[in-house]
Amino acid sequence: MIRKELISPRSIAVIGASEDVHKPGGALLANLLRSSFNGDIYVVNPKADTVQGIKSYHKAEDLPDVDLGILAIPAHLCEEAVRILCEDKHCGAIIIISAGFGENSAEGAQIEKNIIKIVRDHNASMIGPNCVGVMTPYYTGMFSQPVPKLDKMGIDFLSGSGATIVFILEAAMQLGLKFASVFSVGNSAVTDIEDILEYLDETYVHGQSSPVKMLYLESIKDPQKLLKHARSLYNKGARIVAIKSGRSAEGSRAASSHTGALASPDDAVDALFEKAGILRCFGREELVTAAAVLMYPKPAGRNIAIVTHAGGPAVMLTDTLSENKLSIPHIEGPKAEELLSKLYLGSSVGNPIDFLATGTAKQLDDILNACENDFDFIDAICVIFGCPGLNTVQDVYEVIYKHIQTSKKPIYPLLTSIHNAEKEIKYFQSLGGISFSEEVVFGKALGKYMNQLGATADYPEYRMDTKTIDRIIAENGDGYLAPADVKALLEAAGVECVKEYVIHSEDELKAKAEKVGFPMVMKVVGPVHKSDVGGVILNIKDLAQAYESFGRIMKIQDATGALIQPMLKGFELYIGAHNEGAFGTMVLCGMGGTMVEMIADTSHALAPISREEADRMVSSLKCSKLFKGFRGAKPVNEDIFKERIMRIGALCAAYPQIAEMDLNPLLCDGDRILPIDARIRIKK
Amino acid sequence: MIRKELISPRSIAVIGASEDVHKPGGALLANLLRSSFNGDIYVVNPKADTVQGIKSYHKAEDLPDVDLGILAIPAHLCEEAVRILCEDKHCGAIIIISAGFGENSAEGAQIEKNIIKIVRDHNASMIGPNCVGVMTPYYTGMFSQPVPKLDKMGIDFLSGSGATIVFILEAAMQLGLKFASVFSVGNSAVTDIEDILEYLDETYVHGQSSPVKMLYLESIKDPQKLLKHARSLYNKGARIVAIKSGRSAEGSRAASSHTGALASPDDAVDALFEKAGILRCFGREELVTAAAVLMYPKPAGRNIAIVTHAGGPAVMLTDTLSENKLSIPHIEGPKAEELLSKLYLGSSVGNPIDFLATGTAKQLDDILNACENDFDFIDAICVIFGCPGLNTVQDVYEVIYKHIQTSKKPIYPLLTSIHNAEKEIKYFQSLGGISFSEEVVFGKALGKYMNQLGATADYPEYRMDTKTIDRIIAENGDGYLAPADVKALLEAAGVECVKEYVIHSEDELKAKAEKVGFPMVMKVVGPVHKSDVGGVILNIKDLAQAYESFGRIMKIQDATGALIQPMLKGFELYIGAHNEGAFGTMVLCGMGGTMVEMIADTSHALAPISREEADRMVSSLKCSKLFKGFRGAKPVNEDIFKERIMRIGALCAAYPQIAEMDLNPLLCDGDRILPIDARIRIKK
Repeated sequence: MIRKELISPRSIAVIGASEDVHKPGGALLANLLRSSFNGDIYVVNPKADTVQGIKSYHKAEDLPDVDLGILAIPAHLCEEAVRILCEDKHCGAIIIISAGFGENSAEGAQIEKNIIKIVRDHNASMIGPNCVGVMTPYYTGMFSQPVPKLDKMGIDFLSGSGATIVFILEAAMQLGLKFASVFSVGNSAVTDIEDILEYLDETYVHGQSSPVKMLYLESIKDPQKLLKHARSLYNKGARIVAIKSGRSAEGSRAASSHTGALASPDDAVDALFEKAGILRCFGREELVTAAAVLMYPKPAGRNIAIVTHAGGPAVMLTDTLSENKLSIPHIEGPKAEELLSKLYLGSSVGNPIDFLATGTAKQLDDILNACENDFDFIDAICVIFGCPGLNTVQDVYEVIYKHIQTSKKPIYPLLTSIHNAEKEIKYFQSLGGISFSEEVVFGKALGKYMNQLGATADYPEYRMDTKTIDRIIAENGDGYLAPADVKALLEAAGVECVKEYVIHSEDELKAKAEKVGFPMVMKVVGPVHKSDVGGVILNIKDLAQAYESFGRIMKIQDATGALIQPMLKGFELYIGAHNEGAFGTMVLCGMGGTMVEMIADTSHALAPISREEADRMVSSLKCSKLFKGFRGAKPVNEDIFKERIMRIGALCAAYPQIAEMDLNPLLCDGDRILPIDARIRIKK
Repeated sequence: MIRKELISPRSIAVIGASEDVHKPGGALLANLLRSSFNGDIYVVNPKADTVQGIKSYHKAEDLPDVDLGILAIPAHLCEEAVRILCEDKHCGAIIIISAGFGENSAEGAQIEKNIIKIVRDHNASMIGPNCVGVMTPYYTGMFSQPVPKLDKMGIDFLSGSGATIVFILEAAMQLGLKFASVFSVGNSAVTDIEDILEYLDETYVHGQSSPVKMLYLESIKDPQKLLKHARSLYNKGARIVAIKSGRSAEGSRAASSHTGALASPDDAVDALFEKAGILRCFGREELVTAAAVLMYPKPAGRNIAIVTHAGGPAVMLTDTLSENKLSIPHIEGPKAEELLSKLYLGSSVGNPIDFLATGTAKQLDDILNACENDFDFIDAICVIFGCPGLNTVQDVYEVIYKHIQTSKKPIYPLLTSIHNAEKEIKYFQSLGGISFSEEVVFGKALGKYMNQLGATADYPEYRMDTKTIDRIIAENGDGYLAPADVKALLEAAGVECVKEYVIHSEDELKAKAEKVGFPMVMKVVGPVHKSDVGGVILNIKDLAQAYESFGRIMKIQDATGALIQPMLKGFELYIGAHNEGAFGTMVLCGMGGTMVEMIADTSHALAPISREEADRMVSSLKCSKLFKGFRGAKPVNEDIFKERIMRIGALCAAYPQIAEMDLNPLLCDGDRILPIDARIRIKK
C-alpha cells in the first residue's frame, strides 16, 4: 500500500545523513535540501551536532514524530531504526537505500524479513532496501545523480534496478525529458512496481496526472496486477512504456506439446504488454525515445511531413517511417507552389520538404504554418535541423518551440547536431522542449507507437454449457482427456466439431444426414477392415445416394450400422492453447496440419482475447494470404476463424485447469471450420 | 582518379577565403590553419590584402603554382577559377564546396558540365561541388564543424551527403572515434565514392593503412566497382561499414515473374554488401557504433564475459548478445573461486561478473586479469561501468584503458554514465580509448559483426558446354525460351534434368531404362488420351516389369512408342534468378511448388555464389528444417541442392543475358534434385 506519507510527507528524517556528499547519506540529504520540499527535515547522525547546516539528532529515539524516514545506515542497524520510526514516531513511510539485505546474504535476508514484519504490522509504506530512493513532485529522496527536472506533468518512472535508473535518467536528460516521480524499488521487500502502478492508476486523473509511465522491470511477480492497472491507466488516457529484461533465460520451461513450444516464455510478456497497452522496449535509448514520443499528442493519422535542411537524415527517416507503415505523402498543388515560392531556389516541398542548408527561421515558420493549416492530410510533422557549425540555430529552435506550443498536430524536433548545437539544444529544452537527436531511433519509436494495438477495452462474451465443462473437468484427473470428453467439452464450449452419427435404420438416415450435410462419407460399423469389404463410400452428394449407399453397406457381412460424417476438404489451420502460469493462458493460431511445427507460422495472445487481438493474430499470419482460396479450396471464412479463437480464449480464461489444448488441424471448408483432431490436457 | 595532390598537397589555395568564420570560405580557412598542414597556404579574396593573417591575392591569376585549389565562391565564378587553376597553375586537384550547380538549376548543371570537362582535360582530381570538403592525414579542407581528431590509423569516412557527414562526425565523437580521412563527394561531378574506395584499396597496406572504412551512400552508381574494391579491401584485412539509404523507394521496378518479385531492389544492395564484406547499417548511431566495434580486434570466438558494477545493463546486454547467437558462458572452478574471494560479499563471477556498485578499480584489475589469463574460453570482455554521481570513476577507466592496451582479447568499455561521468569519459577518450554508452546498441553492433559472412574469397568453377549455351542464346530473341531450349541450356550448364526417352523397340529399353532409373513411369506415345486407353503405367520397379509394361503399351491401338520417365516423389524446392541490372543477377532459392509465392520462404545472393553464400542461403530457409525428411519423403541432399544453387549462380554470372530463370518445383528425391518445370527468359 502506498500511503500519502510516501508521496507528500510533511516531514522527513534522514537517518545516517552525512556531511560527506560522496556518501549516499550525504548525497541524499544534499539532493533533498536542493529540492523544493517545504516540510520539516530532520537528520540523525550519532557523531555530529549539525549536518549540512541542519541540527542533527544523535539517536532516532530523539526525533520528533515524522512522516517519512529515509535510512542510509548499515543493514544491521536498520531493523531497530525502522522499529523506532514505526512504533514511536508515527512514521507512515520508510525508504531504505542501504544494501546488505536479501541480495547479499542469508543474514541480510533475515533482517529484511524482520523489517517487513514491522512495516506490515504498522500498516506503513516502505520502498527498498537496496535502492537509490524516491522522487515525487514534493521532495527528492534519492542519493544518486542526475536529479532530473521535476514537472508534475512529466514522466512517472518506476524501476526494479537502481543503477539502471541512473543510466536511464542520464539518457532521458539528453532529450529534455522531465519527471513527475521516480521510484527505485530495490529488493521490493514490501512494495513492488505493481503496487506503485496500482497507486498511480487509482489516483490518475486524465489531464491532471502525469500522462506517461516508464517502467524498467527484471521480473514480473504479479502479471495480473500489472495487467489490471496498466490496462486501466491506458484506458483512462495514460501511456506506458517499459523494458522487461532477462528475456533470454536459458532455463525456460519445457513445453510438453509442440503447439505449446511455439510460444517462448518471453512471448507471454509480449502478450501481456500488448493486452495492457504497454509499449515494449528493449534498450535504454529506445525506452527514453519512446517515452519522449509519448509525451507528444498522438498523430491523428499516418501521414507524416518531414521538414529538413539536410537530405541524408530525411532519407533515413523516410526509410524508417515507411518500413513502419507510416506514409510520407506527396505534397503538391497551389498551396505547395505558394510555399515553394517562399523558399530558396533548389528547395523542394514535395515531402520531404527540403529548404536547404541555407534555410532560415522565417522559412521554417512559413513551412510549419503551411503544414499545420494548408496541408490538411498531414497528421504530424518532423523537423530535422542541425548545424554545420557556422552560425547559431537558436532562432530556428525558437520557431520550432513556438509552433509546438500552438499546433494541433504534433511537431517532433530532430535536433541532430548534439555537438555543434549543444548550447541551442539545451536552450530549447530549457524552454520545456523535448527533442530527438537520431532520426532512425526516433522513427522506430514513432512507428512502434503508431502500430501499437492499445490496451484491450472489452472482451466478447460467449454462452457456454458450463455445467458440462465443470463436470468433465471434475471427473478427470490431470492428463489428457479421452476423445469423447474432448469433443463433449468443445461442444459444451460452443466449438463446432465434426458431426458424425451412427445410423441403424433407414428411418434415422434423413434427419441425421441433414445434420451432417452433403457431400458426406458413409462407413460401415462392425467389420474391422472397412475398406477391404467396400465399407467406405465417399462423396455422397444427396439423400437418394445416401439411401442407396446405406442399403449397400447394411448388406456387408457383420454390418451393425453405418457411420456418417461430412466429407471435408480445405485449408488446414490450427488453434492451440498453453497455460503460462501467472500470466494466464496463451492462445495460439496458425497454419495447421504437419506444417505447424515446420513452418511455425503462428501468432498468439493471452486469453481472454479481444476482437482487436484476434484481428491482429489472424492478419499477422503469413498464411492469411492463402485465406482467399488456395489450390482450389474454398476461401477461409476469417470471421468464423476469429470467433473460434476468441471462444477458445474465453474458455481458457474461464478454465485455467485447461493446461494445454490443441485443435490441429482445423479444417476450413467454406463456412465450416472443424477440428479434425483435438487434444486437451487438464492440470488442476 | 585520385591524385596525390588531393591527398597530400604541397600547397593549397583557398579561393574565396573570408575573414568571417561564419562563412564557408572563412570557416574552411580557419580549419585549415588550425590543422597540421605544413605546406604553403595561399588565399584569394578580391577585396582584402590579408585574410586571417595570410596575404591575399586579389585574383586567381596572380597565384603561384599550386597543388590543390579549394573553391568557396559563387557557382558562376567557379568555371573560370577552375580553368585558371588547371591551365595556368599546374593544379592537380580541385575541391569545390560551393553549391548552386546541378542540384539547383539547369544553368548550374551546365556550369558543372563545363568544369568536369576542364578537370578531365587536365587529368586533375576533383571533389564536389556542393560538399563540405575533404580531410586527410595532411590537411583539413572542410568548412564544417566538428573537425574530428586526426589519426592515420583512424577511420576513412566517405559520404554522399555533406550535412550527414557533420551529424555522423558529431555522433562518432561521442564514442571517441578518430579519423584518417573524410571525403564529402557532394554532387560527385568527377569523383564518386567508388573512386575513392578504389584509391583506398590500391594504396592499402595492412597494418599501416586505416583499418576501417565508413560509408554513407544514397546511391550506388557503379555496384561492380564498389564490390570489387570493398571485397579486395576486406580480403586484405580492412573492414567496411556502410549506410545505403533510400531503400524504401516506392518506384521500384516491376518484376515480371513471381520469383523475381520475391527479391526487392534493396535486397540487391544487401546481397552486394554481403558479397563485398560491407557491414550494412541503417542509422547514424548504428553506423558509428559498428565502426567503433570494428576498431577493436575481432573476438576469436563467441564466448563473451560481461563485467559490470550494475545489474540492469548486464541483463540487457546478455539478452542482446544471446539473441545474436553470442554466448555468455558460465564461469566456475577454482580460478573463479579465487577471483570471487577478491571481491566484496554479494559479488558474483558466474558471468555476468557483477562486482557491485561499490566495486573498486583494483577489483576490476583482478577481474580483467582473470578474464584475460585464467578463463581461456573467454574470447572478449565487455566492461560496464557508469557512475551514480558520488565519486569519480577515473581510476576505473584508467584500469580499463591499461588492459585494452595489453590484452590479447578485445575489451569493450561500456561507459554508461554520459552525464555523471562525462569528464571521465572524455579523459578516457583523450588517452585514445574508444567507448560505448548504450549496451543494447553496442550488443547489436557486435552481434552483427560476429554474424557477418565476410567478403567472398573465391567462387567454385563449373565446366559448362558453353558452345551450346552460346548457340541457344544467339538463336533466340528476347523472351521466354521454348521448353526444349530450356532443357538443352540447363543440361549444357550441367544442371541435371528429368531424363525421359521415347522407346520404339525392346532393344532400346534396357539402356534407356538404366539411364532413367527405377521406379519409372511409362506412357504410350501416339494416342491422345493416354490414361483412357490404359497407356500410363506407374511405379515400374525393375527391368522385368519394364519389358512387360512395354509389351502391354505397344499393343494399344495407334501406339508408336513409349515414353519413360523416372517416377519421382519428394520435397519441392525452387531455384530462381533475376537480373538486377548493374548489380548483376540475383539467385534465389526456397520452398518450392505453389508454396513459393505464398509462404515466401526464400533467400538470395548475387551471382556468382560462393560456398559460404550457398551455405547461408540454405541454412536461413525455414524449410531447411524439413530437409531431414518430411511426410515420409527422403531427406534432401543439401550438398547437391547447394551445388545446383552455385551452378546456377555461375551460369547467370557468365550469361547476363539470362534475365530471369525459374526452376520450380525442383523435386528432391534422395540424391536426385530435378526441375519438374523450368522457365528461362532471355534479354540481350
